[in-house]
Amino acid sequence: MSFEQRLAELGIRLPGVPRPVAAYVPGVQAGNLVFTSGQIPFVDGRLAFQGKVGADLTVEQGKEAARACALNALAVVRDLAGSLDRVKRVVKLLVFVNSAPGFTEQPQVANGASELMLEIFGDAGRHARSAVGAGELPLNAAVEVELVVELHD
Amino acid sequence: MSFEQRLAELGIRLPGVPRPVAAYVPGVQAGNLVFTSGQIPFVDGRLAFQGKVGADLTVEQGKEAARACALNALAVVRDLAGSLDRVKRVVKLLVFVNSAPGFTEQPQVANGASELMLEIFGDAGRHARSAVGAGELPLNAAVEVELVVELHD
Amino acid sequence: MSFEQRLAELGIRLPGVPRPVAAYVPGVQAGNLVFTSGQIPFVDGRLAFQGKVGADLTVEQGKEAARACALNALAVVRDLAGSLDRVKRVVKLLVFVNSAPGFTEQPQVANGASELMLEIFGDAGRHARSAVGAGELPLNAAVEVELVVELHD
Repeated sequence: MSFEQRLAELGIRLPGVPRPVAAYVPGVQAGNLVFTSGQIPFVDGRLAFQGKVGADLTVEQGKEAARACALNALAVVRDLAGSLDRVKRVVKLLVFVNSAPGFTEQPQVANGASELMLEIFGDAGRHARSAVGAGELPLNAAVEVELVVELHD
Repeated sequence: MSFEQRLAELGIRLPGVPRPVAAYVPGVQAGNLVFTSGQIPFVDGRLAFQGKVGADLTVEQGKEAARACALNALAVVRDLAGSLDRVKRVVKLLVFVNSAPGFTEQPQVANGASELMLEIFGDAGRHARSAVGAGELPLNAAVEVELVVELHD
Repeated sequence: MSFEQRLAELGIRLPGVPRPVAAYVPGVQAGNLVFTSGQIPFVDGRLAFQGKVGADLTVEQGKEAARACALNALAVVRDLAGSLDRVKRVVKLLVFVNSAPGFTEQPQVANGASELMLEIFGDAGRHARSAVGAGELPLNAAVEVELVVELHD
């Protein structure tokens, strides 16, 4: 089954490609690698998760936010590559979690993005990842995710 | 017009290559990609922008700081590549903004770096970007920028 | 002398490959580049350095923590590549330091990771680096390090 078929089977619809907040583009291909810009959890054009995880949002809400970021990142990849079926593997996620003081469960939050990759891409979705706490994020987004994927030649 | 000519036309002089604060080098080429170290806003050998944007510095000052970081990053690229004319495209900026509590305009600050790329490289300057808030930065720098560019073969 | 021999001569034993805290893998190879996940300072299966540098830990302890993270990252590289002798060069370190308010010596802390690269790889260990302050890190780790290396064909 292709990744696009898998996406359909999972009933996941990728959002429209997010419009950058500023003077840059949603993603760039260099060689076989696609680097996305940092994605924040826009859902239907609205920033759906704002505030600090561990204070304003629960871990579970943070995880949903991370998944929303990852969906936006995949929309960027599909837009650049033409189809998710051109993905050879997911390489790397860098996940910034807007963290309340003392909140240290960034990995649980970031799993919202990581698990989406496994759902869609299976073994090809296994990726390297860093999850860190950010003091502040753009527009008070709860999470910001940047993604690197490798495409087939 | 070449990128070096464009730089001259814009009246921009790249600074000397910044000397790393510690045990590393200003940048590395791997394959066709150049990765720079995180650059802070040294101007004429002096750290020109210190403190937290949103408290000690305005957004406009933060933006100037980001531009200064980006100039240093381009100096590194030129030093490694020999000339900016070898740049195929700007791939990615990662911009850390030393942010006061509650400051969420990291994208506006990061535009100082992004807009410089567009000024110099035009379409080839369109890049992926993440802008995040850092709790603290080295030497209390206002901004830190790392850059990835792709070179021609 | 090979890098593996150098490691032995230095009396450095790489730890077991760290088990990811969550839904991802310790590292990924894409082309000739290996990207590791963010490593925290596990030593003998225990998180050996917790808390904020500049408050709970001294700079020197932070530096030891960074070195422990880097050892874990190299264990990942060896596991993926088969041997450190396949390393062509160390490309990049991204070092997040769990920083107390007002702590700005992230570069000194990150040197714990950078100096290890120079010890083991010599000239091939000279890398680009960013060191930043994170508000919070997973499990209250003192430092988190992600590593990119280039392998020989």
